[in-house]
Amino acid sequence: MPTYAAPVKDTRFVLNHIVGLDRLSNVPGFQNATPDLVDAVLEAGGTFAAEVLQPLNQVGDREGAQRQPDGSVRMPTGFKDAYEKYKEGGWPTLTGPEEYGGQELPLVVGTAVSEYLMSANLGFSLTVMLTEGCIAALELEGSDEQKAMYLPKLVSGEWSGTMNLTEAHAGTDLGLIRTKAEPNGDGSYSITGQKIFITGGEHDLSENIIHLVLAKIPGDPDNVKGISLFVVPKYILDENGKPGTRNSVTCGSIEHKMGINASPTCVLNYDGAKGWLVGERTKGLRAMFIMMNAARLGVGVQGLAMSEVAYQNAVAYAKDRRQGRALVRNKEIADAADPIIVHPDVRRMLMDMRAFTEGSRALALWTALQVDLSRKSEDATEKQAASDLNALLTPVVKGYLTDLGLQITVTAQQVYGGHGYVKEWGMEQFVRDARIAQIYEGTNGIQAMDLVGRKLPMDGGRAVRLFFDRVTRDIAEAKGHERLAPLADALEKALGHLQASTLWFVQNAMTNPDNAGAGAVSYMNLMGVTALGWMWLLMAKGAQEDLANGAADKSFAEAKLITAKYFAERMLPEASTYRRRIEAGSATLMALPVEAF
Amino acid sequence: MPTYAAPVKDTRFVLNHIVGLDRLSNVPGFQNATPDLVDAVLEAGGTFAAEVLQPLNQVGDREGAQRQPDGSVRMPTGFKDAYEKYKEGGWPTLTGPEEYGGQELPLVVGTAVSEYLMSANLGFSLTVMLTEGCIAALELEGSDEQKAMYLPKLVSGEWSGTMNLTEAHAGTDLGLIRTKAEPNGDGSYSITGQKIFITGGEHDLSENIIHLVLAKIPGDPDNVKGISLFVVPKYILDENGKPGTRNSVTCGSIEHKMGINASPTCVLNYDGAKGWLVGERTKGLRAMFIMMNAARLGVGVQGLAMSEVAYQNAVAYAKDRRQGRALVRNKEIADAADPIIVHPDVRRMLMDMRAFTEGSRALALWTALQVDLSRKSEDATEKQAASDLNALLTPVVKGYLTDLGLQITVTAQQVYGGHGYVKEWGMEQFVRDARIAQIYEGTNGIQAMDLVGRKLPMDGGRAVRLFFDRVTRDIAEAKGHERLAPLADALEKALGHLQASTLWFVQNAMTNPDNAGAGAVSYMNLMGVTALGWMWLLMAKGAQEDLANGAADKSFAEAKLITAKYFAERMLPEASTYRRRIEAGSATLMALPVEAF
Repeated sequence: MPTYAAPVKDTRFVLNHIVGLDRLSNVPGFQNATPDLVDAVLEAGGTFAAEVLQPLNQVGDREGAQRQPDGSVRMPTGFKDAYEKYKEGGWPTLTGPEEYGGQELPLVVGTAVSEYLMSANLGFSLTVMLTEGCIAALELEGSDEQKAMYLPKLVSGEWSGTMNLTEAHAGTDLGLIRTKAEPNGDGSYSITGQKIFITGGEHDLSENIIHLVLAKIPGDPDNVKGISLFVVPKYILDENGKPGTRNSVTCGSIEHKMGINASPTCVLNYDGAKGWLVGERTKGLRAMFIMMNAARLGVGVQGLAMSEVAYQNAVAYAKDRRQGRALVRNKEIADAADPIIVHPDVRRMLMDMRAFTEGSRALALWTALQVDLSRKSEDATEKQAASDLNALLTPVVKGYLTDLGLQITVTAQQVYGGHGYVKEWGMEQFVRDARIAQIYEGTNGIQAMDLVGRKLPMDGGRAVRLFFDRVTRDIAEAKGHERLAPLADALEKALGHLQASTLWFVQNAMTNPDNAGAGAVSYMNLMGVTALGWMWLLMAKGAQEDLANGAADKSFAEAKLITAKYFAERMLPEASTYRRRIEAGSATLMALPVEAF
Repeated sequence: MPTYAAPVKDTRFVLNHIVGLDRLSNVPGFQNATPDLVDAVLEAGGTFAAEVLQPLNQVGDREGAQRQPDGSVRMPTGFKDAYEKYKEGGWPTLTGPEEYGGQELPLVVGTAVSEYLMSANLGFSLTVMLTEGCIAALELEGSDEQKAMYLPKLVSGEWSGTMNLTEAHAGTDLGLIRTKAEPNGDGSYSITGQKIFITGGEHDLSENIIHLVLAKIPGDPDNVKGISLFVVPKYILDENGKPGTRNSVTCGSIEHKMGINASPTCVLNYDGAKGWLVGERTKGLRAMFIMMNAARLGVGVQGLAMSEVAYQNAVAYAKDRRQGRALVRNKEIADAADPIIVHPDVRRMLMDMRAFTEGSRALALWTALQVDLSRKSEDATEKQAASDLNALLTPVVKGYLTDLGLQITVTAQQVYGGHGYVKEWGMEQFVRDARIAQIYEGTNGIQAMDLVGRKLPMDGGRAVRLFFDRVTRDIAEAKGHERLAPLADALEKALGHLQASTLWFVQNAMTNPDNAGAGAVSYMNLMGVTALGWMWLLMAKGAQEDLANGAADKSFAEAKLITAKYFAERMLPEASTYRRRIEAGSATLMALPVEAF
């Protein structure tokens, strides 16, 4: 049975040294986030994740969410109880708006806790995560009446929320959707169509489910410019705001998937269901994209979360399992074989996982901070900078961290040898669960296109120039320190490749957009490894400060410095390969005629 | 539902240009392998795979092999019929020794066909593959009596075979096994112990199951030097050589796995089962390693096989699924959206898969040829060279091709977007099935250690020097050709990194073996990408010859040249990163104390 303990110490290190939580108390929304409170939230969140959610992870996979003959969906054993505890603990309210009963803590704190919940039980956590997206969209686009009707119950967790975008023939390309919304004449609309892949579309955890649905009003353009957003509750609210009449939206089936079996992925049939327009008519995609942008950070964190729990279990096995002798002998002589952690190749796997996972945590929390600052900062320059950096890095966090999520869970499974392939040990579930994050909320290829096609040219390249400036500044500063200088040098080379690749796009993608598409994923990886290298430089700097300040836990700080060095030696050299791929362009890649495939 | 068509044309291209089948007719064992016969075998094998095995692949995954309360194992629906057809078609006899009823065709032909069988249905094919290993071991190490007793029935497929190595506490480290073989005084032994992860350990396909079992005879050393090999039939043969008394070996349970569900992975309990020594006492590992070496090539082919079928289905979907518009517009205007194959990032995925898969096929068949030559050539120099190259490249074929197998099946799944994650579409099964090949027959980390620790220093580096010579010769020859020169240049750079890395090991691994372990997997990847680059150079050369000779199918030859260029531009640049990782050594990698994890 896999185990899990929330990495609170590492989170705290990142909050101190990368986020700089203590320096943010003058930013609105951060006042409440005192170190003591944040510590308490992290500890309690970690405990809840480890004690309540994690023990249900394997049963959730085994039983799965089950659709009943009447169209209802039964969640796996123990999930309803866990959801009750989740509500009782106040967890749904963590980052919710105070006005509607939330604690309105910074997203950076919410993100730290959500990592723990997802590590412990991704299947459970997805329903929760989608509700947060639903809250964000209603808060931004909903009318005051809609906010009053839905937000308090969504924030408390009594109700849950969904996002309804995809149809069978329309995934990435939402312009193709066919779901119709016909005006009823009383301000409401009659929604008809079929949506697929709806996470948490039906289940027995909450009293009501609030669906946000993309549809077209007849007469509006039959393309992306004609899409509007509607709120469609499972139970229509009565005059007291309580769930009343059952709406005509039903779960036609649930998908049988590779993983996240506990999360019901529903086909939802809207058969003249009653809905209400949210925000402006034909501007539905705008609201959806705001919501998706937030969700993309959350999905990136899923990659991190799967990496962390898989890494922890790989470490435990590597210390416990005895096979073979150390190459450099006599490291241990008490038994017939050494624990496999003595073998350099096992150590390589552990160090790879560690370097990527801790780097991912730093980048995810740093990005969450940019979201907070972009929303709340009263310094216009800081606010704009945070907004730019968030826009730029969000597709990288989603794409790169979820690609790492698969890579790391596979590596962790490999440490177990044959046992890693057997369900009972739990490692293969991490791989199956991690896989989805590369696909949903826009495949990683789509993230890469968003990065190269939209985020790079945005405002004449302002965001990427700012990113280069920040990294360059930190490199320059680090060069004077003995232990940081080698990291700074390695990062400088990677950054050089990133800058050269950016210039290559400027020079070659305007004349031939296929050159952007052909290099997009390589560019996302290049920016990802550079961004993680930057995070490692900052973490190494933080560790040195801790050592200089006489930190109580010297070994923790030393481990950070060693892992930073490992990242610089082993990961940053990838940068040159990505650049070579980008500069290869699209000519050969597009050369084969379609019939040749 | 996934589909499959055997890539007979591509196999033939490799047999012509890489293997040079037509030039081998003077090598013993190749006389029968006339082009016409080989063509007929490939066509028929492809048809059998596509029509009989492939339709059972999903049902095999869904139902799995099922252990019954009486300890017997029921194979999935249709498998028994398919096995009957497999026998009737004479497929088990393809490469078996003529003396025992086989057709004794070269392994290179057998390997080509086995790729098809495994693409179509890996779960089914594993039982078959293990029987081949069992035949090989008995042929090499068995007494004449044992050969006469077991080989005819194993070759015909009436009986099947297994390899019993692993115990719960002893996987990689076989010295730790505890299974005992006590002499009965009549030439037989009484085998007691528990073996795990036994593929095909129990099933209802064949009349008898012949287990080859590693065990220790009391009094022999309790380490790798005390291991002997035994043959333990499920049914002890009666005086007529027919299955008689049930032996006391029973299936205690079967594993619930991530994939290859149709393949029963058994816990086998030996409770004083009757067995007979095979080969020399205490030399059991030698026989097992011969068998495993052959099996490792077969497992490498599994990586290729999963890549091919996943690639084919990704191509089909990319041509069919319409989402979005081409970046360079007006490529198609007939519909509201273009097929996704127009998008450069989708094209990148297809080209990546194609370049790796076709390269893998060439390397696998080239390696099989080395096995044939090392066994059958009458030219002592050729025989030794083939033996050296086979020893060197086998761990690369196993490790690199199965790592690619996972990477390519994941990429193919990605092409499907959300549908790739849903079981019904079949793509996620390829990922789950491909995953095991990185683990069994020695994890890929073990393969890398075999390569670096044993194969490189073997005979003073003779094998690797020969490999360098061959590649260098082909590079030099290609430099004079306009379209081959760029490929040769790219390959020369990769080879330079490989040579430099080899030298680095010579200089740094003797003084500190951890330096070998720390760089082993990177070295395996480096040799893998170089070997595939070599294969692509040879394939490009072959394609040019075909064009010069007025080949009927020009577009096939052109596609080879383009894909070769793609490999050179996009894959070979990885080489420098692997070298950097190797040269980073083990200092940082081993620096963390165990407690820091």
